[in-house]
Amino acid sequence: MRKYNVAIIGATGMVGREMLKIIHDSSFPVNKLRLFASIASAGTKLSCEDETYIVEKIEPGSFTDVDIALISAGGNVSREIAPQAVSEGAVVIDNSSAFRMDVNVPLVVTEVNAKALRKHDGIIANPNCSTIQLVVMLKPIQTAFGLKKVIVSTYQSVSGAGKNGVDELIDHTDLMLKDKKTQPNKFPVSIAFNVIPQIGEINENGDCFEEVKMMNETKKILANEHLQVAVTTVRVPVMIGHSEAVYFQTEKETMLEDIISILSQAKGIKVYEPECFPTALDSQCDDDVLIGRLRSCLGSNDEFLGWIVANNLRKGAALNAVQIAEYLIREDLL
Amino acid sequence: MRKYNVAIIGATGMVGREMLKIIHDSSFPVNKLRLFASIASAGTKLSCEDETYIVEKIEPGSFTDVDIALISAGGNVSREIAPQAVSEGAVVIDNSSAFRMDVNVPLVVTEVNAKALRKHDGIIANPNCSTIQLVVMLKPIQTAFGLKKVIVSTYQSVSGAGKNGVDELIDHTDLMLKDKKTQPNKFPVSIAFNVIPQIGEINENGDCFEEVKMMNETKKILANEHLQVAVTTVRVPVMIGHSEAVYFQTEKETMLEDIISILSQAKGIKVYEPECFPTALDSQCDDDVLIGRLRSCLGSNDEFLGWIVANNLRKGAALNAVQIAEYLIREDLL
Repeated sequence: MRKYNVAIIGATGMVGREMLKIIHDSSFPVNKLRLFASIASAGTKLSCEDETYIVEKIEPGSFTDVDIALISAGGNVSREIAPQAVSEGAVVIDNSSAFRMDVNVPLVVTEVNAKALRKHDGIIANPNCSTIQLVVMLKPIQTAFGLKKVIVSTYQSVSGAGKNGVDELIDHTDLMLKDKKTQPNKFPVSIAFNVIPQIGEINENGDCFEEVKMMNETKKILANEHLQVAVTTVRVPVMIGHSEAVYFQTEKETMLEDIISILSQAKGIKVYEPECFPTALDSQCDDDVLIGRLRSCLGSNDEFLGWIVANNLRKGAALNAVQIAEYLIREDLL
Repeated sequence: MRKYNVAIIGATGMVGREMLKIIHDSSFPVNKLRLFASIASAGTKLSCEDETYIVEKIEPGSFTDVDIALISAGGNVSREIAPQAVSEGAVVIDNSSAFRMDVNVPLVVTEVNAKALRKHDGIIANPNCSTIQLVVMLKPIQTAFGLKKVIVSTYQSVSGAGKNGVDELIDHTDLMLKDKKTQPNKFPVSIAFNVIPQIGEINENGDCFEEVKMMNETKKILANEHLQVAVTTVRVPVMIGHSEAVYFQTEKETMLEDIISILSQAKGIKVYEPECFPTALDSQCDDDVLIGRLRSCLGSNDEFLGWIVANNLRKGAALNAVQIAEYLIREDLL
């Protein structure tokens, strides 16, 4: 079986480190694995099990022998490095928002729209973390009953803002427990013992960037441009794991039992019993999208509520990117 | 001006202590203030400014000289003590869920439906904390444009579960920062660095008790039995201050500017500029209902999103109860 040369760009970040772990832990057919990061991090040693890697800086020609480049270093790095990697022969799976809404770039969650990978120009976009877990739940429902409207409120962990986000939560929590003052830096106001209803800049419509991403990406991935999506994205003082409270309206009337049955059979989903529920802490040791609190609402036969939890660093980022790579290999789409 | 004898039952609890503070800080025309709590707490001294009170246990005749009894000690205590207080001549303002849905009991937020106080049989119910802040926002909108549908996701602080809730959050946070194990007690799973999508027992429809309370109480207070209300209630690791992400649909089409204008003029509300937002920490030093993130959604002229924050111990409980008492006095309804 052929093996592939893989590069992780942004390897020292939280998502990059998860990518390294996942590739090590899985049966990914890797030949040579190279890690890249910013010039400041070049030379850093990263270990995974018995292997130690030295982080390299990116230079012209860095990707000439790379088959798959997994980039997770923010939009600006992606815009600069992805075209270089493609021109040097790699297929890029990009975790930033830089290319997601480009009509020529597949935006993929393999359980949902893997077929979109059949046509690509070298760049494939990994969706936003909070979008991924949402579409994994919505797709089987859309297929079975059609989907009209979705209203989501998120409870997003600080690791979505990277290691600095996690550090700020830990530092500020510690300070507040000692009755000391905190000075927000990574977040607009203190995140310790607080929730912040804004992720990314607020535009002229009043939506913040995270909300815009979720609205646009959900429609693109579900290939449902008439789907109505309203979102409020909120940062909560949780380390890892995004949660979402979701209202959805189906096209056809149906029974709650049918919704539960469809979701229980779907790939990559774990449905909790009605009296149970998943939380962010559960997602820290489970790679599935965890769904609970499913119920009918408003006395209606086409309106439902649910609660979706997933590990934002893994299924919401690193794992989804590796799953895209595995599909490309399996279907010979590199 | 006449002064009144006031009793606080559950005085050692978090809400009871806020009631004591509010009565001291405000111009409430109090003659004699007596504090009651469980037998275990009887004899405890509670101080407020220069005054010290000795907490009493409740006995037959405890309320014979009491004009207003503010009860906040849980449903079981209310069911036992409220009838006694009424029969001994007091008017009860009860903070538990015991009497809220009783058709003969007014359920009141003074900014919203103070007129319901005109007819009472001695017991008046103070609504659920998360309901109060919701109806304070919805009422002016309903009056101006009519209200069809409301979908709410809450972010509720641990003080809603009392002092044990706050203590558990502090203890477990401290343990987790030290990488030590936690054992949930007050909450079904660990609340430190986590969010829990369940408050109260889950019924056969899949709704938890807090959700049932919000759905029923909102319709009763707004006197709108056809209003559609769907709720997901979630506990978050915040000490004080409940937040809510709200979708609402009006009967009449309208402009966002008109919604903002109506809310800005309403009593007890502070509307934040579009690019700003209130958080739970803000509510710790502000007694208003704080509203932000107001925006249109779904490209519609009758659907909107907003973010509501209030201090659950004060406007959500103690302050609202005192405001009811003040209205009863002002309108001679005792």
